[in-house]
Amino acid sequence: MRARVFVTLKPSVFDPQGTTVSDALHTLGYANVKDVRQGKYFELEIDAPTADEARKVAAEAADKLLANPVIESYRIEVEEAR
Amino acid sequence: MRARVFVTLKPSVFDPQGTTVSDALHTLGYANVKDVRQGKYFELEIDAPTADEARKVAAEAADKLLANPVIESYRIEVEEAR
Repeated sequence: MRARVFVTLKPSVFDPQGTTVSDALHTLGYANVKDVRQGKYFELEIDAPTADEARKVAAEAADKLLANPVIESYRIEVEEAR
Repeated sequence: MRARVFVTLKPSVFDPQGTTVSDALHTLGYANVKDVRQGKYFELEIDAPTADEARKVAAEAADKLLANPVIESYRIEVEEAR
């Protein structure tokens, strides 16, 4: 089962990477890009019998390792098909 | 309109970050996590009249700035609602 974990800085936390990307896009002429937030993306191939079980493993991994819960939040999507 | 861009290393490219995360998860006891690939994640807030237009801007941004097309591939999702 494949789980996708998206880790982003919380909205209240300043995101210098995103700001740099946004500035670079404006320099390239993309003035209609209003805001950019950069985050991390993980694809986990999990050997689990159900999607719920895979989601549980992914959430634990995110809590313990992938995200810093003080400044980051995460979102998980589980793909049913394998 | 919000566009999400996921940038991952192509499957043929060695992903040392993903391997390190995978090893760390095994050390933490998650033996059922078989494989991890790490990538980058961007949320772009784009001022565009249609989802197609937003997708076009996001694809150009990914080609020119966000991804290195030699070793990385990307995927774009556009959120209709704003």
